[in-house]
Amino acid sequence: MKHLSVTKAEAFIAQALHANHVPLVDAKLVAQLMIQSDLVGADGHGIFRLPAYIKRIRAGGINLSPHIQIEREQGATALINGDNALGHLVMNRAVDVAIEKVKKHSVCWVGSHYGNHSGAASVYVRKLAEQGYIGIYMAVGNANHMAPWGGIDLLLSTNPIAIAVPAGDKPIVLLDIATTVAAYGKVKLAAQKGESIPDTWMIDRHGQPITDPQKSSEGSLLPIGGYKGYGLAVMIGLLAGALNNAAVGKGTIDFNAHHDLITNTGQTIIAVDPSAFGDQEQFVARVIALVDDLKASSKLPGVNQIRVPGDGAARVMAERLAHGIPISSELQESLNNCAKECGIAALDL
Amino acid sequence: MKHLSVTKAEAFIAQALHANHVPLVDAKLVAQLMIQSDLVGADGHGIFRLPAYIKRIRAGGINLSPHIQIEREQGATALINGDNALGHLVMNRAVDVAIEKVKKHSVCWVGSHYGNHSGAASVYVRKLAEQGYIGIYMAVGNANHMAPWGGIDLLLSTNPIAIAVPAGDKPIVLLDIATTVAAYGKVKLAAQKGESIPDTWMIDRHGQPITDPQKSSEGSLLPIGGYKGYGLAVMIGLLAGALNNAAVGKGTIDFNAHHDLITNTGQTIIAVDPSAFGDQEQFVARVIALVDDLKASSKLPGVNQIRVPGDGAARVMAERLAHGIPISSELQESLNNCAKECGIAALDL
Repeated sequence: MKHLSVTKAEAFIAQALHANHVPLVDAKLVAQLMIQSDLVGADGHGIFRLPAYIKRIRAGGINLSPHIQIEREQGATALINGDNALGHLVMNRAVDVAIEKVKKHSVCWVGSHYGNHSGAASVYVRKLAEQGYIGIYMAVGNANHMAPWGGIDLLLSTNPIAIAVPAGDKPIVLLDIATTVAAYGKVKLAAQKGESIPDTWMIDRHGQPITDPQKSSEGSLLPIGGYKGYGLAVMIGLLAGALNNAAVGKGTIDFNAHHDLITNTGQTIIAVDPSAFGDQEQFVARVIALVDDLKASSKLPGVNQIRVPGDGAARVMAERLAHGIPISSELQESLNNCAKECGIAALDL
Repeated sequence: MKHLSVTKAEAFIAQALHANHVPLVDAKLVAQLMIQSDLVGADGHGIFRLPAYIKRIRAGGINLSPHIQIEREQGATALINGDNALGHLVMNRAVDVAIEKVKKHSVCWVGSHYGNHSGAASVYVRKLAEQGYIGIYMAVGNANHMAPWGGIDLLLSTNPIAIAVPAGDKPIVLLDIATTVAAYGKVKLAAQKGESIPDTWMIDRHGQPITDPQKSSEGSLLPIGGYKGYGLAVMIGLLAGALNNAAVGKGTIDFNAHHDLITNTGQTIIAVDPSAFGDQEQFVARVIALVDDLKASSKLPGVNQIRVPGDGAARVMAERLAHGIPISSELQESLNNCAKECGIAALDL
């Protein structure tokens, strides 16, 4: 597989966005944040999304001159209005506000509405952990592919949650999960490749497992842990959607079907300062001790290595910073088609 | 089945605790909080636990004259030192501190260490939601019954999370889940009854499903959603254990095996004021709208009713307030044995 350096990838994205009237400073920032998703191996959330973002921009579904602002602010909380900007800009602002507020109050809760898809959740909590804070992120996903437990109607998204905990000079402990067994993107990928999917991923309207991804359109993704994951998806929908006066449930816009409609994506960031609870170094030592104990566990037959949330991402990041981002031939084609549309040079691979 | 009124249940617990030198005011408060677990149907967390609590008290494992205090306080955060009190007293104090702080800062994060088992997590977040706040609770469980994903060593507990969202005069939307598919108590109950357990609950040291609960002692509970639930358990362990300088991982004391050792239970409460993000009534209306939409979903064959987190608890609470708490003959015997030990009157059923 070919590899694209981070510098070239960022430049390509920034050019494409700028060619579509995204101001250069915004285009560069979005490019840099998009590549953060690729760097941690969240391949469905980085440069892969560029053609979809461009499609939305060209359809008028994004405000290219947004006035992202703090709409309400009270104590250690803030509500940001993203003014339908590219989601990365909104979340970048949310992280900045969170850092300001956590410095002052030791904890803060920053909600946002009128945002958009902003890549992997991990990108934003990682920024907090890099500065020594614990970060939690929750979002309402941009398409409903899950029914309530026992139901058929697709009223819920995969509503992800990410949590990052700093670990000194060791990899940040970082969990970034959807509340469904599989992301819908994985189903679509299997359909593209003509592969079947495991019978634990989706059910049809009769409650039977779907294994042919071509039949996924009316099916429901299954939540992790049955009613437990369903419950988590509901609660995240309330905390990131209803609380922020953002879309949730029936109000959710399918961003793959409607490129021109305002998604009013809701996202929430919580930051907390570990030093408010005791010595930061001792805290980090306790984090590392737990990580080391977990990794040193005896292994099940056939298991080579025990993983801890975030160490896979750290390994991928080191590899990709050194060797670039792998670009499949399908992705190369898709990005070069996009380049042609935007009137910019093809990928330099 | 016989039923015990709330008044009688509380009086019985308070008498039993007081007979074991728990100050009367504390005994009454713990009794009232214990019964809150029974009221929502968390039968393994209420009066059922009294004999175990008494055993721990008699073994010297609980400080009966605790000085529960705020050990650190900074901005919108606090760390409570529970001084090894009965866990309910520690969490009750944590909720009081959280309410004070959320009024001032709109959000707060209150951690605690040197606590103990304090009943169902839902009890404490419900208190916050009853006052119009969103509540989140996380805890390190009091015994390790889960291995890291891919591992064998039992290093993690079922680390629960509870989230409550106020819904006006409708039932509080409330999720209270362990991060394992099943609680270990359910495994023990099946063993008692001589029943088998589903093959999705536990695996043995070779990675094979355990269906005979008699063979559970060396097995590992399975996390919800595989590595996702494992990751959640790790992160909750860090946020409720490591952050609060409480026990986690190898440091966790098995409270069923060691009645005299200080458990140093770690718990965390986050409270947030929805009115900081917009009009409270409009928020509640959005919560109710999502709940109503979910409940109105078309149903899978064989499903009578779509449930939303918290509505089962609300129904059970109404029933039990009216008709009392169901007491099985086994529970009656266990409580009457406990009464005899404490030198108090048997249950008046």
